[in-house]
Amino acid sequence: MKLDAQWVTGFVDGEGCFHVGLSRHREMRAGVQVLPEFTVVQHRRDIQVLHALKAYFGCGVVRVNHGDRMAFRVRKMEDLNQRIVPFFSAHPLRTRKHVDFIKFRRVLNLMSKGAHLASEGVEQIRVIASQMNRGAREHDCLPTGESGESSR
Amino acid sequence: MKLDAQWVTGFVDGEGCFHVGLSRHREMRAGVQVLPEFTVVQHRRDIQVLHALKAYFGCGVVRVNHGDRMAFRVRKMEDLNQRIVPFFSAHPLRTRKHVDFIKFRRVLNLMSKGAHLASEGVEQIRVIASQMNRGAREHDCLPTGESGESSR
Repeated sequence: MKLDAQWVTGFVDGEGCFHVGLSRHREMRAGVQVLPEFTVVQHRRDIQVLHALKAYFGCGVVRVNHGDRMAFRVRKMEDLNQRIVPFFSAHPLRTRKHVDFIKFRRVLNLMSKGAHLASEGVEQIRVIASQMNRGAREHDCLPTGESGESSR
Repeated sequence: MKLDAQWVTGFVDGEGCFHVGLSRHREMRAGVQVLPEFTVVQHRRDIQVLHALKAYFGCGVVRVNHGDRMAFRVRKMEDLNQRIVPFFSAHPLRTRKHVDFIKFRRVLNLMSKGAHLASEGVEQIRVIASQMNRGAREHDCLPTGESGESSR
């Protein structure tokens, strides 16, 4: 299935999610791990669309989200910075999800400067993250359910 | 906000719904009223996108769906037949929602021939309708909550 850039933008306006997770992590210098991720969740019956997105962006994984819902997910910093961010900068979303994307990009920029490795930077990221995804369907904008970070 | 055909297709692949309602109606010849509708539901914060869809298709209404969710909705047979169906026939959806659209179009064709005015036709439509929207998020694919059919 070959996708069009505008179709991808429209579909992500509907189904995509830019999420920044923060979790306690003893081994991290600031005691907190910052986990930005881009996901698109679909019912299992439409898994072929998720694989088409994976092929389109040339990165990410397709995994179970929860129950019968699957997720296309990108977590690797390099892929987020070199593939996801440039795409949505060039093809702006039309819904308020664009505002979430701008915040997501700001967090990635802070991380590129190492801000997430110090407490002050983590607090700055926490504030930005708390202002994202308001009004989103909660279910589809939570981190994917699996444990283990094998795909990072 | 000017929309692109492929963006509209992608967004409807994510958020759109083709629904055929059947309700008892004493005044109808077959005792049942058949109500096909095309809807796109969004959180209130994205109402401008729904108005952009209304302008793009040149038909329909924007109404409260339930709670803080709004719907762009098309119910008029003329608009469904002359605007919605030709658009999605020319720009096929990429998810399994395409199959729902094909069934929706079949119901409209049956109605154009008057099938919904006889019991046999209503049964035929009921079977098709029961096979639609499997796996859809229920909330967003129910008829809009308002009473009164002033917009028909």
